[in-house]
Amino acid sequence: MPTYLDQNKERFLSELLDWLRIPSVSADPKFQGDVLKAADFLKARLEEAGVENVELCQTAGYPIVYGDKIIDPSLPTVLVYGHYDVQPADPYELWTSPPFEPVIKDEKIYARGACDDKGQVYMHVKAFEMMSQDGGVPCNVKFMIEGEEEVGSSNLSIFVKANKEKLKADVILISDTGMLSNDVPSIEVGLRGLSYHEVEVTGPNRDLHSGIYGGAVPNPINVLCKMIASLHDENNHITVAGFYDNVDELSAEERAEMAKAPHSDEEFKKSIGLKDIHGEKGYSTIERTSIRPTLDVNGIWGGYTGEGAKTVIASKAYAKISMRLVPHQTSAEITQKFQQHFEKIAPQGVTVKVTPHHGGEPVVTPTDSVAYQAAAKAIETTYGKKPVPTRGGGSIPIVAMFKSELGLDTVLLGFGLDSDAIHSPNEHFGVFNFLKGIETIPHFYRNYAAASK
Amino acid sequence: MPTYLDQNKERFLSELLDWLRIPSVSADPKFQGDVLKAADFLKARLEEAGVENVELCQTAGYPIVYGDKIIDPSLPTVLVYGHYDVQPADPYELWTSPPFEPVIKDEKIYARGACDDKGQVYMHVKAFEMMSQDGGVPCNVKFMIEGEEEVGSSNLSIFVKANKEKLKADVILISDTGMLSNDVPSIEVGLRGLSYHEVEVTGPNRDLHSGIYGGAVPNPINVLCKMIASLHDENNHITVAGFYDNVDELSAEERAEMAKAPHSDEEFKKSIGLKDIHGEKGYSTIERTSIRPTLDVNGIWGGYTGEGAKTVIASKAYAKISMRLVPHQTSAEITQKFQQHFEKIAPQGVTVKVTPHHGGEPVVTPTDSVAYQAAAKAIETTYGKKPVPTRGGGSIPIVAMFKSELGLDTVLLGFGLDSDAIHSPNEHFGVFNFLKGIETIPHFYRNYAAASK
Repeated sequence: MPTYLDQNKERFLSELLDWLRIPSVSADPKFQGDVLKAADFLKARLEEAGVENVELCQTAGYPIVYGDKIIDPSLPTVLVYGHYDVQPADPYELWTSPPFEPVIKDEKIYARGACDDKGQVYMHVKAFEMMSQDGGVPCNVKFMIEGEEEVGSSNLSIFVKANKEKLKADVILISDTGMLSNDVPSIEVGLRGLSYHEVEVTGPNRDLHSGIYGGAVPNPINVLCKMIASLHDENNHITVAGFYDNVDELSAEERAEMAKAPHSDEEFKKSIGLKDIHGEKGYSTIERTSIRPTLDVNGIWGGYTGEGAKTVIASKAYAKISMRLVPHQTSAEITQKFQQHFEKIAPQGVTVKVTPHHGGEPVVTPTDSVAYQAAAKAIETTYGKKPVPTRGGGSIPIVAMFKSELGLDTVLLGFGLDSDAIHSPNEHFGVFNFLKGIETIPHFYRNYAAASK
Repeated sequence: MPTYLDQNKERFLSELLDWLRIPSVSADPKFQGDVLKAADFLKARLEEAGVENVELCQTAGYPIVYGDKIIDPSLPTVLVYGHYDVQPADPYELWTSPPFEPVIKDEKIYARGACDDKGQVYMHVKAFEMMSQDGGVPCNVKFMIEGEEEVGSSNLSIFVKANKEKLKADVILISDTGMLSNDVPSIEVGLRGLSYHEVEVTGPNRDLHSGIYGGAVPNPINVLCKMIASLHDENNHITVAGFYDNVDELSAEERAEMAKAPHSDEEFKKSIGLKDIHGEKGYSTIERTSIRPTLDVNGIWGGYTGEGAKTVIASKAYAKISMRLVPHQTSAEITQKFQQHFEKIAPQGVTVKVTPHHGGEPVVTPTDSVAYQAAAKAIETTYGKKPVPTRGGGSIPIVAMFKSELGLDTVLLGFGLDSDAIHSPNEHFGVFNFLKGIETIPHFYRNYAAASK
């Protein structure tokens, strides 16, 4: 007999595609109307799925979509978090199909937000619908889906602090991460934190002719390059003063355990076209992307960047520089250390301005909790294999905030893959993964309700 | 009795402003129609001034405006060179008035091209008109005004090679440089050459999420910064292998002579808002901008440069890097050395592409020639002071080409000032300088004709 999921999967996909058509880019004010439209769309779908008390909770920024279904106060309560905003889609010219005209090709949904995070949020909406229609929802459920995750969730913590009673729950459930592969299911139990800065270097007070002035003025681009170059030493250790002071160094045993996860440097290189692996001396690729902090320039600009040649010495040069943090670094600590360090290494002739953007705390979630075990068992049921616990490289800053504000642990039940190209051109999400998510989530609820009795 | 110049100066200015309204940006194809319009405008003005045989000589790029007036084959012939194209005007937002809506404020003409080089070319057109109307032209004169100087004059040498008879002359006269100040008139006798490159560094084959991949991939922006940083050592010497091999080192006597030119590092710093002077160890500011070669990044870009934060590792990073050359470096030599060096210093994990743009040869012109003396005397007459011979920092690559192809020396009779902000926002040209140029040029012709007898 075909399941409810079998019978409805075409409609589920079609609804998701409709949502992906709305370019909810929170970073760029020109998409403001679309971000709001994406929130309205979600509100309507939650109501249709049977969620109650659905509302747009206003914030100083984009609204938080809240809704709940309280079956019985004696049952455990799951708070589902996700986000309906997406990363900017540029460079548009590198997309093989337009980012906001979703298409399904080779069993994958191609669109900005397909995986991060609209596709994964929509699994929860449809899993809820499925439970309501097909056997009942076994826990109380609350949804809290925000519109500012990609710009730092700066209004979420204000909302959480002001609504602790409303958000009371037993566990947080988030699908905004990935698995090792469809053959090696996994659950992330650690996330790196983030410290993000925009830096500005000013040399002369106006753009200058490089012939007349070249050689006698500090060129802010050359200076910025020199400053950035100095942030790593010859072993790719980060040179920011005090950067490693609080880094949690894993034991030899823990590292040996990590090394058992399936990984091939050859396949890693091949998957992203690298000629050679790269990173901090003394650590493996998996360690470099999970238990070690990093520093990367995310953007740089200055001077003439148009066609042809312009012989100019720019007045200013800019870069966006971010650091991924690990336990027990804190975003505030590293932000301060970076700022101090970057200002200190500036040569005398230039002025440096460091503007911190949002940050996020690194976090490790427990694997011995009832909720984690419920999630692991759900995956084992639908994938046929026990999931591997992994430490992820990305940051979901709000996980640490939920712990401190609500006292709740999080289960990161993510169905994406590294190859989904989130934050990149041609982001996609496997149809298999989308449907597997919808199938797996109800098992989590059932396992969790049963174990909480 | 008011002079012809006094009587006509308002009209001269008004005509120049009309020309400056045409955005003849040769580097950007979107201005193609305007560049051609600027050539037509010049052709019409030359004809009105009394120049004969005026024509637009077609090239593979923008046309060269040629015209002449042969008074008597026994008289010496002056070939006036200049250019009607201008630098790109961006960043537009830094202009206090729009770059192609010229205005006269505080006795200065503000517009892109006001000084470089439309304003200075137009002095020659009006000086010719004045001589024709007021006493006669004392030499044969040829005009050759091109439209591709700001993009490397790549078609000019082809034109010159094919038209050696037509261009036969005794000296080249160019107004495309500046003076030390209106109180310290000077004539440039040396110019630096140029080697200009665009470089591209590729790391992974697509943009990546910095959380998932950060730490384990060579970030092309960080790599590019490190490569650029390594191009200068701690004394600001350039590290490109063999870079200084052919540099003409001046004698202690020559350097002592140069040090007599009026210069204040304090005023220099103040004029461009610098906190400290900067440059190659062991050399003065004047030396750093004239007799020493340099390396500057003219533009850099890569990754996310929009508003807010995007946690991306870019696939590619780019820079425009140029070197100013001195005798006896050659553009071909340094272009090859830079390319080899830059490819060699690339770390294993990345791919580097170096694309040379146009170059130019450094040049030193004689001060003991009849033409130089005629120019010096003309300036002494109109400024009341003997001009100081200086070595300039900029490049007019065609000066070396004229020497090699036509066997002719050049006189650089420039009336701009360093503070004119050429190649920068708010380029301007003093009304005093414009009119002083028109006044001085006829003296040059008279002196030159007299001395050539």
